[in-house]
Amino acid sequence: MKVDGKPYRSIWLDADGCTVKIIDQTKLPWIFEVLALATVEQIAHAIRSMQVRGAPLIGATAAYGLAVAMRQDASTENLERAAALLGKTRPTAVNLRWAIARVFQKLLHTPKAERAEVAYAEAAAIADEDVAINRAIGEHGVRLIAAAAKTRPRVNVLTHCNAGWLATVDWGTALAPIYLAHDQGIDVHVWVDETRPRNQGAQLTAWELGKHGVPYTVLADNAGGHMMQHGMVDLVIVGADRVTRSGDVANKIGTYLKALAAKDNGVPFWVALPSSTIDWEMTDGKTQIPIEERPAEEVITVSGRTKDGSLAAVRIAPEGSAAANPAFDVTPARLVSGLITERGLCEANETGLRSLFPEHG
Amino acid sequence: MKVDGKPYRSIWLDADGCTVKIIDQTKLPWIFEVLALATVEQIAHAIRSMQVRGAPLIGATAAYGLAVAMRQDASTENLERAAALLGKTRPTAVNLRWAIARVFQKLLHTPKAERAEVAYAEAAAIADEDVAINRAIGEHGVRLIAAAAKTRPRVNVLTHCNAGWLATVDWGTALAPIYLAHDQGIDVHVWVDETRPRNQGAQLTAWELGKHGVPYTVLADNAGGHMMQHGMVDLVIVGADRVTRSGDVANKIGTYLKALAAKDNGVPFWVALPSSTIDWEMTDGKTQIPIEERPAEEVITVSGRTKDGSLAAVRIAPEGSAAANPAFDVTPARLVSGLITERGLCEANETGLRSLFPEHG
Repeated sequence: MKVDGKPYRSIWLDADGCTVKIIDQTKLPWIFEVLALATVEQIAHAIRSMQVRGAPLIGATAAYGLAVAMRQDASTENLERAAALLGKTRPTAVNLRWAIARVFQKLLHTPKAERAEVAYAEAAAIADEDVAINRAIGEHGVRLIAAAAKTRPRVNVLTHCNAGWLATVDWGTALAPIYLAHDQGIDVHVWVDETRPRNQGAQLTAWELGKHGVPYTVLADNAGGHMMQHGMVDLVIVGADRVTRSGDVANKIGTYLKALAAKDNGVPFWVALPSSTIDWEMTDGKTQIPIEERPAEEVITVSGRTKDGSLAAVRIAPEGSAAANPAFDVTPARLVSGLITERGLCEANETGLRSLFPEHG
Repeated sequence: MKVDGKPYRSIWLDADGCTVKIIDQTKLPWIFEVLALATVEQIAHAIRSMQVRGAPLIGATAAYGLAVAMRQDASTENLERAAALLGKTRPTAVNLRWAIARVFQKLLHTPKAERAEVAYAEAAAIADEDVAINRAIGEHGVRLIAAAAKTRPRVNVLTHCNAGWLATVDWGTALAPIYLAHDQGIDVHVWVDETRPRNQGAQLTAWELGKHGVPYTVLADNAGGHMMQHGMVDLVIVGADRVTRSGDVANKIGTYLKALAAKDNGVPFWVALPSSTIDWEMTDGKTQIPIEERPAEEVITVSGRTKDGSLAAVRIAPEGSAAANPAFDVTPARLVSGLITERGLCEANETGLRSLFPEHG
């Protein structure tokens, strides 16, 4: 999407055709800095240090990591070394391992002299496929916003966390319909949940919406229910970390509370997801999806920028305070109005999902 | 309640019998500092600058303010001047005006020579009455915790914001049953919602529970729904800023979301309140209770302590971000399991309230 009028993806190749460029997301929203990554070590560091984050973007970055490694040394030993190095940068990202395996398999059957070129092409394909999937999610989802726009001058969409272009290669998932609506001239305004404890909403969603020119307003996570009670939210769209085949949705902690408020106030609650997020094995999100418990430190301290412009973390609870920090929660399918996938909209249940993805039937 | 083993109220008289002592709540939880207030100007400043806060405590402090003023100069002009000065320290606190009027009326009919003594006695009565009301709320509410303790080794209570002894003269409202349970030897543990945007949970509730020795764990406001889904909350107890005669509850923003989650998971959701909080005129909280919209700055910045020990505010959203900041929300009576008042427990509806307070029938 756009940054101050200029189109960007979250990862791209330099004009030299081989150096990988990314936006250093650890510095957002305070500093917009593009990094040039010329070695596989630099790329591994970028993933590990979360200069890039978001499962789809991590996958594309790792694929480019293998390409860069092949340019350095196209031997099978180096291919294995690079795959191992990249594979251990983040512990749980499924896309990371999937992307590495895809490029690795392709290269094993490619002569050494062609490996770099083939790897760059495969990485580009992975990135382009992600963009196409998200764009398709946007095209299906924008119908919901366009329909709402027929009966109101401005459509107010609430979102939680960051499921925007920064978490993918472009477009994002939950934000893709919003960007398309905005670009089509629909007056769409976004309520951005700050999304404690890590504030991805206030820091990343706010930044990317603002830079593209989409109007938004930040809310404390506590405020969404009140806004829905008073008719100030027309639609909720969130992303997903995992969706069971029964339509239960694991997403950033706090999503469930917004789904409850949406249900209580008759506000449509939609979940945008690429089909790679669907777990066809699972039928009960609450009991089957493992929820990551993250460090208490994330709850007890808040990071941001001080008045003098420096970045700092402040402690918000007394010394010795314990904190629990479940990173995700599960929204039961009964609270989900529907799912927005790259193949279209469907109900949040097995029948709905199988109608779009019959190959899993 | 106790601070490191020593009993405290939030306001008391010095051994000299006339200097007013308070805890500077603007410095909590970082510094425990007792201030000695010897003039009505100092007392007005303490209320205005929120060194004392919480409606009941503000009322008691203003009453002592008149006593201190009478000790300085017991003339009727000074009485009127002091009442005016104290009356404009905070714009909306009902208890402030009620307490000033009560002492003022009493003094008008008192000879000048006795005014200081009578004012100190009336202020002490106001403070003692608040303590008695909160203690009674605690005694009725502790039955809920004791009942829960019969079937589980530890009772987990979730609370939102600060409705503890720091907001009153002693005991608090929502926390009174918890302190009594703890003091009676019941193993009670509190989930403390941090309560963005001002973090009264993380800063004040955590501090006072910790200092009294009640075990607690801080949660991001987003986490409570997940905790309830997984059986980790036995009971929710919150305070109230206003309760309609139909049982709708206005309380700190985010309370409604926790009430929805409690209902969805069969967790009892109780509201503790002194009867002075009941608005007998109102029948529909959502449409009738005015909700204060506070500065965007409170959402956009977070205050706390940096690693070097200094206090600082950090910005958490990009420059230019708008923020909405409704300070309260309304929980419909249908989500409230019951009310805990100084006269006992009742259902959150007109029949329930009138059974305890027939004089309003």
